[in-house]
Amino acid sequence: MRYNIQELESLRDFYADRLLNNTVPFWFPRSFDYEHGGFLLMRDATGELIDDDKAVWIQGRATWLLSTLYNTVEAKPEWLEGAKLGYEFLINHCFDTDGRMFFHVTRNGAPIRKRRYFFSETFAVIAMAAYSKASGNEEAATRARALFGKCVEYATTPGLLEPKFEPTRPAKGIGVPMIMLNTAQQLRDAIGDPRCDALITQWIGDIEKYFVKDDIRCVMEQVAPDGSIIDHIDGRTLNPGHAIEGAWFILQEAVHRNNDPQLISLGCRMLDYMWERGWDTQHGGILYFRDVYHKPVQEYWQDMKFWWPHNEAIIATLLAYLVTGHPKYAQWHRQVHAYAYTRFHDKEHGEWFGYLHRDGSIAQTAKGNLFKGPFHLPRQEWYCRQLLTAHLQKSSV
Amino acid sequence: MRYNIQELESLRDFYADRLLNNTVPFWFPRSFDYEHGGFLLMRDATGELIDDDKAVWIQGRATWLLSTLYNTVEAKPEWLEGAKLGYEFLINHCFDTDGRMFFHVTRNGAPIRKRRYFFSETFAVIAMAAYSKASGNEEAATRARALFGKCVEYATTPGLLEPKFEPTRPAKGIGVPMIMLNTAQQLRDAIGDPRCDALITQWIGDIEKYFVKDDIRCVMEQVAPDGSIIDHIDGRTLNPGHAIEGAWFILQEAVHRNNDPQLISLGCRMLDYMWERGWDTQHGGILYFRDVYHKPVQEYWQDMKFWWPHNEAIIATLLAYLVTGHPKYAQWHRQVHAYAYTRFHDKEHGEWFGYLHRDGSIAQTAKGNLFKGPFHLPRQEWYCRQLLTAHLQKSSV
Repeated sequence: MRYNIQELESLRDFYADRLLNNTVPFWFPRSFDYEHGGFLLMRDATGELIDDDKAVWIQGRATWLLSTLYNTVEAKPEWLEGAKLGYEFLINHCFDTDGRMFFHVTRNGAPIRKRRYFFSETFAVIAMAAYSKASGNEEAATRARALFGKCVEYATTPGLLEPKFEPTRPAKGIGVPMIMLNTAQQLRDAIGDPRCDALITQWIGDIEKYFVKDDIRCVMEQVAPDGSIIDHIDGRTLNPGHAIEGAWFILQEAVHRNNDPQLISLGCRMLDYMWERGWDTQHGGILYFRDVYHKPVQEYWQDMKFWWPHNEAIIATLLAYLVTGHPKYAQWHRQVHAYAYTRFHDKEHGEWFGYLHRDGSIAQTAKGNLFKGPFHLPRQEWYCRQLLTAHLQKSSV
Repeated sequence: MRYNIQELESLRDFYADRLLNNTVPFWFPRSFDYEHGGFLLMRDATGELIDDDKAVWIQGRATWLLSTLYNTVEAKPEWLEGAKLGYEFLINHCFDTDGRMFFHVTRNGAPIRKRRYFFSETFAVIAMAAYSKASGNEEAATRARALFGKCVEYATTPGLLEPKFEPTRPAKGIGVPMIMLNTAQQLRDAIGDPRCDALITQWIGDIEKYFVKDDIRCVMEQVAPDGSIIDHIDGRTLNPGHAIEGAWFILQEAVHRNNDPQLISLGCRMLDYMWERGWDTQHGGILYFRDVYHKPVQEYWQDMKFWWPHNEAIIATLLAYLVTGHPKYAQWHRQVHAYAYTRFHDKEHGEWFGYLHRDGSIAQTAKGNLFKGPFHLPRQEWYCRQLLTAHLQKSSV
């Protein structure tokens, strides 16, 4: 069943209220590290700090969030002050001498671990771009554009980063085109960059050509260089939440390009296929991994429910509904919204738990760790608020 | 309550029966790869092959198992034939040109992945040593001794293998002294090696000095170089099943050294501490990870029940009972035996499932993958059979 205007208004108010009165206040200002810069984000359910280390992905993502709230919701000095702490920690402590970034550093910025991937870099790009817009700091914009250039180079130059696997069975993942697509979108929206449109077109083309399999209604997580399915355990493993996140990046691009019908079709197909494969019809929620041929998935925790696929599905279903008006997407949005806010949300202390067992019981109580922090949930609440606000304004004209 | 002789006899018969009529027949001879050598072990619950790749750890472990059954249970030509397939695959396809071993190869032995650790090597040492004893192949013994020498070098030369972490916060894990201790025990038992006794003494000393914390009744999984606890998420994470495995390696050494009382005390303390911390009093079974200070563990699947900690606990409790006669250990053995054979064993197709949710329901049905194969379960059933047979013979004298 479709949403009526009153329902959309109350959804808008719900997301805005949760974002500003529940999620963001869980993290800030208490996580600002005035002593060493950056944020102290590894927190238990109650907010108690369980580790003062800093995950570089999350330092960048939190900087992006605070800057984006400042740019789009309210010019609150506290948010800009926090964003500055994050930006300065990133540029002063998170880069190695070879220009690559670390993955995990101590509270005062000494390196613990560097990884082969360049996702620390992509999150720093969106952080720097949004911070530049918020602060007017031109150096941040220059840095964002230069680092984006490096990411493009890493993404397109085979062998530039040390590979994890031997060359026997080459594979490529959907992660790189997906995250580069969104990085380019964020960079373009915040500070503009003439490279972005063509690159976005190319990455979306790669996703469609290599990873989307219409014949079996599936989005692959990795494939051989020619796009064929690698019929081994890893090659068969699907990540429905990840593909659904990719779906809304593409739907967002469709909107940006005056509701481009081919992009709408592509984003909706990706969402449809992976909702069918990922939604747990027995217990509700989105299963973490699936096998393309329904064989056992190697990862033993494959049937857990993680917070972030639900954030991505909440965005994707709402966006698909607003773009197409198809009642199926309203229904899915209701379903995933109800599941997620019932199961993940911590009614006592705010924010969401990160990890549920398949049956929906809580597996682990931390709100922040090396991988979870103020990103997927506040981004979802912020994005849905923005989307609904714009939609309702348009409707009332 | 203590076990009486009849109970011990029926336990011996149970383990022998399961080993020879249920577990080993699940794997062999159908997993022998006559075409390319080695074993095809990645199998679903029914035994159907889900991937023809080969995990080098498991190729070595299966070679060890078949050789050891041949050496100690029955000189069955089929087992020797299988061991030869494994041995030849290991030496022909699993070594890189730098002398290190791969972690994961294709069916015909092309390399997929090499890791920073040298556990492929330690399992190849025990495979080669046991195969040499079974076959009389002297070259296998020479290779086993030489590769053991390399492992000792990797274990004792800092920086020889590429580290995963930056030098900011140095740490060492209990895995290396534990696995080296058991590798040396196996090498000594199969073909003898004059280096082993002194090295075993040293590794047990390292475990006691650095990892066993009597004041807080705990065995750490990793510590700082001086043995202090690293109060960050990773440093606080305990692996009770792993420490319990270490406990029985030490109890086994105590028996080898004429019931050395200090080693009995050390092994039993390790078992006691980690049983207290690992046993799930709510649902039964051994929890995978715990935090030393009872904070949230980062790994979201930390409360799952894996098959192998139960195999290790079955051995450790039985050995502790037979060595000390303490009724507590008989009770624990009954508890973990009942839980494991009820929950993990596949009554329909044989062998055990690998991965249960905390509540004991099955999370994943595969019997074999990159990490699970014919090792922990058949080793447990074989070891308990041997132990009880020897004990009952001694008692009847």
